[in-house]
Amino acid sequence: MGKQFSVTDQFINVDEVVHKVVRPESGAVNTFIGTVREFTKNKRTLYLKYEAYVSMAEKKLAQIGDEITSKWPDAKCAIVHRIGELHISDIAVVIAVSTPHRADAYDASRYAIERMKEIVPIWKKEHWEDGTSWIGDQQELKRYPTGEPLEEDL
Amino acid sequence: MGKQFSVTDQFINVDEVVHKVVRPESGAVNTFIGTVREFTKNKRTLYLKYEAYVSMAEKKLAQIGDEITSKWPDAKCAIVHRIGELHISDIAVVIAVSTPHRADAYDASRYAIERMKEIVPIWKKEHWEDGTSWIGDQQELKRYPTGEPLEEDL
Repeated sequence: MGKQFSVTDQFINVDEVVHKVVRPESGAVNTFIGTVREFTKNKRTLYLKYEAYVSMAEKKLAQIGDEITSKWPDAKCAIVHRIGELHISDIAVVIAVSTPHRADAYDASRYAIERMKEIVPIWKKEHWEDGTSWIGDQQELKRYPTGEPLEEDL
Repeated sequence: MGKQFSVTDQFINVDEVVHKVVRPESGAVNTFIGTVREFTKNKRTLYLKYEAYVSMAEKKLAQIGDEITSKWPDAKCAIVHRIGELHISDIAVVIAVSTPHRADAYDASRYAIERMKEIVPIWKKEHWEDGTSWIGDQQELKRYPTGEPLEEDL
């Protein structure tokens, strides 16, 4: 099954992440799945590469899980982010949150992806049709030359 | 792969539903997964049975897909609902919606589950620890004796 909050260089199976959070007391699971999109504002992506400061990234993903259970005590969350070379339509990240009722599942899942953008040290290198650029997966890391937030990219 | 909008008596694989909507132009998929919860207001469910007017249910699920693409032209949606006997933690329904950016994926997915409750002719028979009751999965069908909406149940 792997860890509840992990960074992996392997293909992510959505079903497996969902089953990390399904429990008798939950009736709803919301998942957010980020996939590699081909076009971003008319620029074509050929493939991309995710890199992470893995131990810190996993710690930050687990922190998001803690934040979620402090805000939604009945929620259970799992997040798996893939790194390495990814191609168009590949799954880069899966967030799953289970709750007794559905409204909380939506809210907590949305909270998780927004926080992921803010605090998790994962970057992607876009291999565009006409060159490459690094894009920070978090907003606070501005040290990369073209480090704009991934906000619009998932 | 099966149909985009279907009612099935088989186990639902989340990955398979997600892959019905993943496309090069999408960067985000939101899924809603309804599972069988053990307790509802202190009443314990042992198992339950879903029944559907299948051809009409599939037509209504497809209608929800049409409504979604008229509201979110870049969205693609798939919905699979299971019928028959389901046990605690089994997956009853999977809704998947892909969009270029994530905000729309969340909104369209939420729209789909709310509409499903309203218009799709699927009912569940709860087998409680102390008896049984029919609960309509849609609000307009009041002809079942205890036909309250499933609103709170997923």
